[in-house]
Amino acid sequence: MCQLLGMNCNVPTDICFSFTGFACRGGRTDHHSDGWGIAFFEEKGSRLFLDYLPSAQSPVAQLVQQYPIKSKSVIAHIRKATQGEVSLANTHPFQREIWGQYWIFAHNGDLNNLPAIRGEYYRPVGSTDSEHAFCLILEHLRQHFSQAPSLTQLAAVLKDFVPHLAQHGIFNFMLSNGDWLFAHCSTKLHYIIRQAPFAVAQLVDEDVSIDFSEVTTPEDRVAVIATLPLTTNETWHAMQAGEMVYFCEGQVTHVLLPNTL
Amino acid sequence: MCQLLGMNCNVPTDICFSFTGFACRGGRTDHHSDGWGIAFFEEKGSRLFLDYLPSAQSPVAQLVQQYPIKSKSVIAHIRKATQGEVSLANTHPFQREIWGQYWIFAHNGDLNNLPAIRGEYYRPVGSTDSEHAFCLILEHLRQHFSQAPSLTQLAAVLKDFVPHLAQHGIFNFMLSNGDWLFAHCSTKLHYIIRQAPFAVAQLVDEDVSIDFSEVTTPEDRVAVIATLPLTTNETWHAMQAGEMVYFCEGQVTHVLLPNTL
Repeated sequence: MCQLLGMNCNVPTDICFSFTGFACRGGRTDHHSDGWGIAFFEEKGSRLFLDYLPSAQSPVAQLVQQYPIKSKSVIAHIRKATQGEVSLANTHPFQREIWGQYWIFAHNGDLNNLPAIRGEYYRPVGSTDSEHAFCLILEHLRQHFSQAPSLTQLAAVLKDFVPHLAQHGIFNFMLSNGDWLFAHCSTKLHYIIRQAPFAVAQLVDEDVSIDFSEVTTPEDRVAVIATLPLTTNETWHAMQAGEMVYFCEGQVTHVLLPNTL
Repeated sequence: MCQLLGMNCNVPTDICFSFTGFACRGGRTDHHSDGWGIAFFEEKGSRLFLDYLPSAQSPVAQLVQQYPIKSKSVIAHIRKATQGEVSLANTHPFQREIWGQYWIFAHNGDLNNLPAIRGEYYRPVGSTDSEHAFCLILEHLRQHFSQAPSLTQLAAVLKDFVPHLAQHGIFNFMLSNGDWLFAHCSTKLHYIIRQAPFAVAQLVDEDVSIDFSEVTTPEDRVAVIATLPLTTNETWHAMQAGEMVYFCEGQVTHVLLPNTL
């Protein structure tokens, strides 16, 4: 299985602290060593850093830890290959353009016997179940909407379609267009909203702590989403199986619980 | 105007030497300081490093110079903004997926009054004439071919369509799917094919030289394409206005001269 990390904020924020702990899980404090990637949205643009080296040893990961890129929406992934060989084409996150927006996707889990790709608009490049599922989601959305929908319209379509894909296995994923970040939990996903009053946080994976009150303003709000909690002294919300949460501007805007899906 | 750099080889090769000279032109030996980017194909995958800092000062450019990524096809670009503000969304190269392949595009020049985007399959995210032209090319190709065409089929369609876009201004560009690299010259583009017997090359922009015979095998073949020659002691082929060259496996496979277009 892989590990996911996401961030969604109301002001551009760097993810250096969280990524430092997360990157250790790629070959040092955990065994997810079949490549990693991170996508940063910066206004309408995005940049994706990918490497098939373990994140704990990757020069690209060192750059990301040392170069504070400020972003309102970030998705990162470290991979333990289950389907598809170790290669750049199979490294998450994946990116496509839809409605003149970049969309980014990363997945933790295993999906089997997914529906065939119709492929009118989107086709996978690599051989993972994850990119296949991403293309199915985008194809479904593009068939429904020829122009960018509102969050409410989009949520209504995903609410029906995501459980349909999730029946095929384990489907913990994050999806973002830079403004909105959607997190779906099949088995394991946690989140925390950091806002004033900010305090000191201590990483699980490294002997590193940060006093957020020194690097924030009282209006800042940051949602951090991760497979497993990244800090020892904060309370993370454990998502339920089948729960889907929509983040925007660093806060939760919709929660769809399994019994409401 | 911007500067372009491309490479197409028969074995995965690093571009550190050429990129070292090229990156100097982004704010040091020349004034192209409104961001830069480089795309590497690695088998079917690609990775794109982008930064809106000048390449001569960018930590990401330092990484690219120091981390020898081996690739059979590379496109790089340093930007002097003419249309569209300085932002990540306007930073070349641009990437899209078509027929389950990633395609990469970068442009030097200025295009005006381009045809409107039909946008059934591809829409620009940023505000440059360049991304607009890229989307027009992909849309045109996708309307013609629902599956990946052969190089000959593709060349036949581009041969008619590219001059149609080039009428709108200056259209020096490179386009690649990792196997093929197309270079079109409106005003300024040069290339060189390096093959055995390899010799010493000396950069124009830095006091750096390399003896290629020490880092190659006799079978290696590398095409390097650049707005202006990167070395002082090699003979670069200056492309004609309207010339389009197709590179594959480090050699020229088709040349379309203006009078044959």
